[in-house]
Amino acid sequence: MPARLLLNCDLGESFGSWTMGLDEQAMPHIDLANIACGFHGGDPDVMARTLKLAKQHHVTIGAHPSYPDLQGFGRRSMQCSASEIINLIHYQVAALDGMAQNQGLALSYIKPHGALYNDMMAKAEVWQAVLQAVASYHKPLKLMILATANSADYQQQAAAAGVSLLLEAFADRRYTDAGKLTPRSQPGAVLHGAEVLTQVRQLLEQGTVTTDSGKALPLTADTLCVHGDNIAAITQLTEIRELLRQWP
Amino acid sequence: MPARLLLNCDLGESFGSWTMGLDEQAMPHIDLANIACGFHGGDPDVMARTLKLAKQHHVTIGAHPSYPDLQGFGRRSMQCSASEIINLIHYQVAALDGMAQNQGLALSYIKPHGALYNDMMAKAEVWQAVLQAVASYHKPLKLMILATANSADYQQQAAAAGVSLLLEAFADRRYTDAGKLTPRSQPGAVLHGAEVLTQVRQLLEQGTVTTDSGKALPLTADTLCVHGDNIAAITQLTEIRELLRQWP
Amino acid sequence: MPARLLLNCDLGESFGSWTMGLDEQAMPHIDLANIACGFHGGDPDVMARTLKLAKQHHVTIGAHPSYPDLQGFGRRSMQCSASEIINLIHYQVAALDGMAQNQGLALSYIKPHGALYNDMMAKAEVWQAVLQAVASYHKPLKLMILATANSADYQQQAAAAGVSLLLEAFADRRYTDAGKLTPRSQPGAVLHGAEVLTQVRQLLEQGTVTTDSGKALPLTADTLCVHGDNIAAITQLTEIRELLRQWP
Amino acid sequence: MPARLLLNCDLGESFGSWTMGLDEQAMPHIDLANIACGFHGGDPDVMARTLKLAKQHHVTIGAHPSYPDLQGFGRRSMQCSASEIINLIHYQVAALDGMAQNQGLALSYIKPHGALYNDMMAKAEVWQAVLQAVASYHKPLKLMILATANSADYQQQAAAAGVSLLLEAFADRRYTDAGKLTPRSQPGAVLHGAEVLTQVRQLLEQGTVTTDSGKALPLTADTLCVHGDNIAAITQLTEIRELLRQWP
Repeated sequence: MPARLLLNCDLGESFGSWTMGLDEQAMPHIDLANIACGFHGGDPDVMARTLKLAKQHHVTIGAHPSYPDLQGFGRRSMQCSASEIINLIHYQVAALDGMAQNQGLALSYIKPHGALYNDMMAKAEVWQAVLQAVASYHKPLKLMILATANSADYQQQAAAAGVSLLLEAFADRRYTDAGKLTPRSQPGAVLHGAEVLTQVRQLLEQGTVTTDSGKALPLTADTLCVHGDNIAAITQLTEIRELLRQWP
Repeated sequence: MPARLLLNCDLGESFGSWTMGLDEQAMPHIDLANIACGFHGGDPDVMARTLKLAKQHHVTIGAHPSYPDLQGFGRRSMQCSASEIINLIHYQVAALDGMAQNQGLALSYIKPHGALYNDMMAKAEVWQAVLQAVASYHKPLKLMILATANSADYQQQAAAAGVSLLLEAFADRRYTDAGKLTPRSQPGAVLHGAEVLTQVRQLLEQGTVTTDSGKALPLTADTLCVHGDNIAAITQLTEIRELLRQWP
Repeated sequence: MPARLLLNCDLGESFGSWTMGLDEQAMPHIDLANIACGFHGGDPDVMARTLKLAKQHHVTIGAHPSYPDLQGFGRRSMQCSASEIINLIHYQVAALDGMAQNQGLALSYIKPHGALYNDMMAKAEVWQAVLQAVASYHKPLKLMILATANSADYQQQAAAAGVSLLLEAFADRRYTDAGKLTPRSQPGAVLHGAEVLTQVRQLLEQGTVTTDSGKALPLTADTLCVHGDNIAAITQLTEIRELLRQWP
Repeated sequence: MPARLLLNCDLGESFGSWTMGLDEQAMPHIDLANIACGFHGGDPDVMARTLKLAKQHHVTIGAHPSYPDLQGFGRRSMQCSASEIINLIHYQVAALDGMAQNQGLALSYIKPHGALYNDMMAKAEVWQAVLQAVASYHKPLKLMILATANSADYQQQAAAAGVSLLLEAFADRRYTDAGKLTPRSQPGAVLHGAEVLTQVRQLLEQGTVTTDSGKALPLTADTLCVHGDNIAAITQLTEIRELLRQWP
């Protein structure tokens, strides 16, 4: 485990008159803010507000680009070509990057959103396109991906492309023996309450998670994905933050 | 008149499967490419292609941001607040800026599009918002506006905000005595064929245009707006280019 | 006053993953549901759900079309031509109309939303375009507009076009002496708590509202606009419903 | 073969200021107009114009609904749920249906567009969702699908759902032995010039097409898909029309 496990959270996903997430309550407790860039959530006004909030709380910022699908919140896979994926990532990341610089902030990383994230972890051609998008951006940004049993493969490919990875684990998701997330459709896929803290503690102490078959799966992670959607999530987030604070 | 009158043209206004403008034919003949940023035309793929084309022909690039109105091609005025205008300009400019840097290009200026351009010239609050958007962008970009009889007022306000202006005249539009464009709804508002070249020559030789009432209106311009929509426009553009080339 | 003052409420304004309004709590208490049609809120899934909910509670349904402006929630005026207004109304109304028929429901009326509603009441050309849109729809639908001091003029013009009007008053908005809504920017423009019930009672008993200058303004209304945005609004709505129920 | 092979063509795919297709030149020669409904092309203004044009030429009209993907022109597959597919079809079909009735026209059929069409022919769950969408529309509309070697299976399932099919063959596409379209990525997938007329003639005379392996594949079709994108397509279309006219 790294010296410090960073907390990352999806933020800035409101759009126009629609509010999503308790950004003001989550921001003070996180290290990395994955900020939506307008294609699944976030609009220029929301982005400016979210950047300002991140600045107030000295939170490191990342771009959270998505397939262009507002109605589906970027959760529906779209069959885009490699060059389409590269260009839609560049567009969104650049938009946030420039707006961040307007506020004196520097973008640190990219975390693809929703279906784009899932496709990146599931389809070689999407992974390659995302990697190429990050590698061909005009400044070095890290790429956040899912920590899995074969993270080493990803890291090797990323290194070859000149890209550094941030590996993220999920505090509230059960893993399969293959080191993937148990699909939400399965019972027990999402952890609740004390289970979440247990998983975080095990990750810190032993560098493992207990899979859905009961095995201890070694998992190396730089960051933990947390949520700020509702009051319960904020409570959980503050508990995780407290646990990390007490960690030697 | 400046030592050299630059030719600027709106480009990159195709969208998805829809083509607009003969960009490949216009680009070799212009100095400044006003590139659409996705809100009235242009999508990330079109933007990447247009930047590549500008690079091939060593054309200076500017961002051409718009109200968010694809169907109306940014030509319908929208009652946006000052902060909405600032943020929508920042978003679009930053998106193009970052994509340009990915290709080793540097953005030089901003030219608002369509209704946003007209509102900027007609409504003080929109002018102030646009000016503030340019002034608060994290790097110095020039702002292209319409050369009018009272350009000095605009220049004074822009200078106070730390913004440099590019004044543009229209080769193919008739002017009113007040130094505005004769509305397209009026007969004779749009010049054709030889009239266009006559207006350009008069602007070069005498620094004036002949208004719709027959007066000679002094007009100082840095750049001339030309078009690349169709074959006739390309022909006109090459004639204007040739005329400028012969200018001492 | 008509025999019965109907309660109308804007509903179905969620979009994709974003929720807006407590539709399930408001629907049981209203008579007329103004259902968003996708241009400012509402998407095909939300529309199908909202129609189902209206059906369960035997609520009369109306279409709530808007300028095409998701980010601005249809609250930003857009300079559309008459034919653009007619076609965007037809498109949205027809979409809802057909989806309603799929559930065995019949559309009864049209209430323009947000800036389109305001423009209809403020600009003659928008009023004429909206009227023509309703008149040229292939089935007779009523048009809901603001009850004002000069409702008779509107009714005369609507009758000439073969359109029936539904006049709506606002339970929670102060009126000017001219019979318009006091702009929200003014102090006291929005009524709260007991003030709202007082205004409704006065409207029922005396057919008047007390204007911001203290005058009693006669106002004839077919329906009262109520809200379902939050718990406080639902409480107010149930109080108004109870008051109407007790009305002889 | 049916007594008469109808010609169908995708039309109304312009959007805002972008023109696509030579609709005015194609419309006089076709029997069935597949009209875009706003999700991949077509906007309310384009739809109104296209309906008017169809009316002038007494052309039967169908709705051409798509995944919501303007930039991708509906050609990128999107992972939508069955209920999402049903609702997006209902919304688009209803919008066109109502606008058609405003002009005194009656909608006759639905032909899914682009990726939705391909997914319908390739994935059982999409086929079932489309079938259910047509079956649950409040008036009987036919469903146009690709004529294949196993059209009988499709017809049986459609009949069970109470839906009538229109089977379409392609004049300008090569078929595989399995009775599918040879992918465009393969050489010879698209027929040109005389090849097209030969295929149409063979279909009329023998009820077969020659596959890419040289076999004669029996193909029963109600309609032939033709194009109106450019001058060459219009020429081909008129030649096919002439050939059909001479058919006994």
